[in-house]
Amino acid sequence: MERPLILVTNDDGVTAPGIRALIEMVKEFGDVYVVAPDSPQSGMGHAVTINSTIFCEEIEVDSEVKEYSCSGTPVDCVKLAVAHILPRKPDLCVSGINHGSNSSINVIYSGTMSAAVEAGIEGIPAIGFSLCDFSYNANFSAAEKYIKTIIGQVLENKLPKGVVLNVNIPKLEEDQLKGIRVCRQADAKWEEKFDKREDPRGRTYYWMCGEFVNFDKGDDTDEAALADGYVSVVPVRYDLTAHHFLGDLKNWSL
Amino acid sequence: MERPLILVTNDDGVTAPGIRALIEMVKEFGDVYVVAPDSPQSGMGHAVTINSTIFCEEIEVDSEVKEYSCSGTPVDCVKLAVAHILPRKPDLCVSGINHGSNSSINVIYSGTMSAAVEAGIEGIPAIGFSLCDFSYNANFSAAEKYIKTIIGQVLENKLPKGVVLNVNIPKLEEDQLKGIRVCRQADAKWEEKFDKREDPRGRTYYWMCGEFVNFDKGDDTDEAALADGYVSVVPVRYDLTAHHFLGDLKNWSL
Repeated sequence: MERPLILVTNDDGVTAPGIRALIEMVKEFGDVYVVAPDSPQSGMGHAVTINSTIFCEEIEVDSEVKEYSCSGTPVDCVKLAVAHILPRKPDLCVSGINHGSNSSINVIYSGTMSAAVEAGIEGIPAIGFSLCDFSYNANFSAAEKYIKTIIGQVLENKLPKGVVLNVNIPKLEEDQLKGIRVCRQADAKWEEKFDKREDPRGRTYYWMCGEFVNFDKGDDTDEAALADGYVSVVPVRYDLTAHHFLGDLKNWSL
Repeated sequence: MERPLILVTNDDGVTAPGIRALIEMVKEFGDVYVVAPDSPQSGMGHAVTINSTIFCEEIEVDSEVKEYSCSGTPVDCVKLAVAHILPRKPDLCVSGINHGSNSSINVIYSGTMSAAVEAGIEGIPAIGFSLCDFSYNANFSAAEKYIKTIIGQVLENKLPKGVVLNVNIPKLEEDQLKGIRVCRQADAKWEEKFDKREDPRGRTYYWMCGEFVNFDKGDDTDEAALADGYVSVVPVRYDLTAHHFLGDLKNWSL
């Protein structure tokens, strides 16, 4: 049987410790290609570069792995990899390991998860991994066992059309992690404050600041799993239709 | 009863003909604030500006309407409007009218729809409007009757928590439009080609080009409604959990 072809990407940039850790972990599962942004792209969501050029060049970091550094967004990286760089459609796309949480509503702002969703749209089984620790020297290896279990299961079971996985890892040491829990996205949001300042020319500008607020008391959410010390796995869909509201909406006077 | 407070935004920029048309149409429904990008932001998806500053200044275009031009993304505009600019939480957010379709999978790349989704996350009834015509001088008034019907119904019925509306308008004259149809998101995607070029310094770069492919033969989709001459209305959710797959996923060896 042919060795699986695995695409690795992220949103923190190709040199970030999180993606370097993930590349090491996926090598045993197949032949690895890396196509990742040349600079940090956190918070880029599902942005694509349609009105500008995209640069992409091969770089050599690790002789076992073909690597490309791309000026575009995480979604651009997946599109360029699939349409142009890879020798065939990959068997798996893994995105991350993100420096910081992409649980609950963060899935929608996340470049890491948008890359995984884009791979899903292309028909590729895909997983986004995020560690709830923003620090550069975060411990990305504590959850190695669980990350490999999830990758192995996705390669074995595949994923149904329209579904990718959002995996978040609590900031804990290896012996404190309790296991893996399948969950739903918690009902949470960011409440923003804008820090208003004046630039040296007297113009007003703002920094966006925010506080994460979890409204969800359920014990079946990703936030609850993380708080309990579990790696959370949420199946994510990109058919955004609110099917449950179609019936009511058809009764409106439209 | 207090007049409704209405936030208008878009992704084509505050001077685009589409938003100017929408502002005129919503005036009769309430007091209007405009907070929109100072430049085109198409394809920005749900991007937010977290590692950079945001400029925002009041501009005067129409004395009846308070307007702000913002250097951020469409989602930034909504966050800044709600947290900082508006006197209270608005009763409605309308985004658009976008120059170009945001039907089916385009909902996920669209700055217009991401602004509406962000308003939804903030608990504000929200609608994104898009006209399937990219031209600067597109006929934004052909569907005025239908746009006003939808706005009136949202103000009257509200929307349930977690749902916003994605409205697309076919490129037709007023007398060719057949009405409004409530639909689901079609199963479609973009198949990209990358146009490879060389810059004057000999470096390779790419332009992303793509062809839209609709795999969905259903007559209940937004693509089918648009092809039949109807304004399509899709209820959109931002709880991305693939609830239908949770049961199967729990049976994996995780």
